[in-house]
Amino acid sequence: MQSYDDGNIFAKILRGEIPSHKLYEDDNALAIMDVMPQSKGHCLVIPKAPSRNILDASDETLAKVMPVVAKLARAAKKAFEADGVFVCQFNEEPAGQTVFHLHFHVIPRYEGVEMKRHSDGMADQAMLAEQAEKIRQALA
Amino acid sequence: MQSYDDGNIFAKILRGEIPSHKLYEDDNALAIMDVMPQSKGHCLVIPKAPSRNILDASDETLAKVMPVVAKLARAAKKAFEADGVFVCQFNEEPAGQTVFHLHFHVIPRYEGVEMKRHSDGMADQAMLAEQAEKIRQALA
Repeated sequence: MQSYDDGNIFAKILRGEIPSHKLYEDDNALAIMDVMPQSKGHCLVIPKAPSRNILDASDETLAKVMPVVAKLARAAKKAFEADGVFVCQFNEEPAGQTVFHLHFHVIPRYEGVEMKRHSDGMADQAMLAEQAEKIRQALA
Repeated sequence: MQSYDDGNIFAKILRGEIPSHKLYEDDNALAIMDVMPQSKGHCLVIPKAPSRNILDASDETLAKVMPVVAKLARAAKKAFEADGVFVCQFNEEPAGQTVFHLHFHVIPRYEGVEMKRHSDGMADQAMLAEQAEKIRQALA
């Protein structure tokens, strides 16, 4: 497995070098909107500690990030009255990983609505901003 | 959301009422083979504490189970020389949950091999036993 490279897009977001729709932040993790959402309210939880994925992440990083994943899952479900939430996480390219900083997808699911593919394209920024505000309100 | 019902199949496995291909066990979690595997080496990590899914799980349960998920992901990758690992977790039926005790899927991925659907059927028990032995060896 390759080692961690801090030039990835999530490392840049964590350093504030590129913008994101921030939902939540604490000492250990950041939650943002996914800009290529697979459903309404699709967000990402990113631990601040550097690791490529769960294969090289420390137990401490994993232990601290998972309660944040649950927090965002509950908030996204509440914000959009979703019927369920799909959580997923990719390790290495053949498994679907495209950004090599550990992150968890939190994807609200709606009865009778198919999940979109991740590559269906960038979402409208105004829509993402509006969804982000709803999730922040649900977290409050 | 409905409350936790301890008549589910994973609660029965945790109580030893029905058999499973055990891979790993500690005070907090059990790992077993998935009997309807989506790829070679597909296993499940199940916290012992009762919760329906991450929406009602305690932070402590989540913090303790995630290092075990990573442990199994590393072992399954090593056991089968997998090219990656997909981790996923379903919350409520519209998101794909079928057994209502929190569990994480650890699905090894192989370059050029599509993931099977979960409903493609029960796997051969001898094959599962053989794969389980390989994962236990990789954990040792």
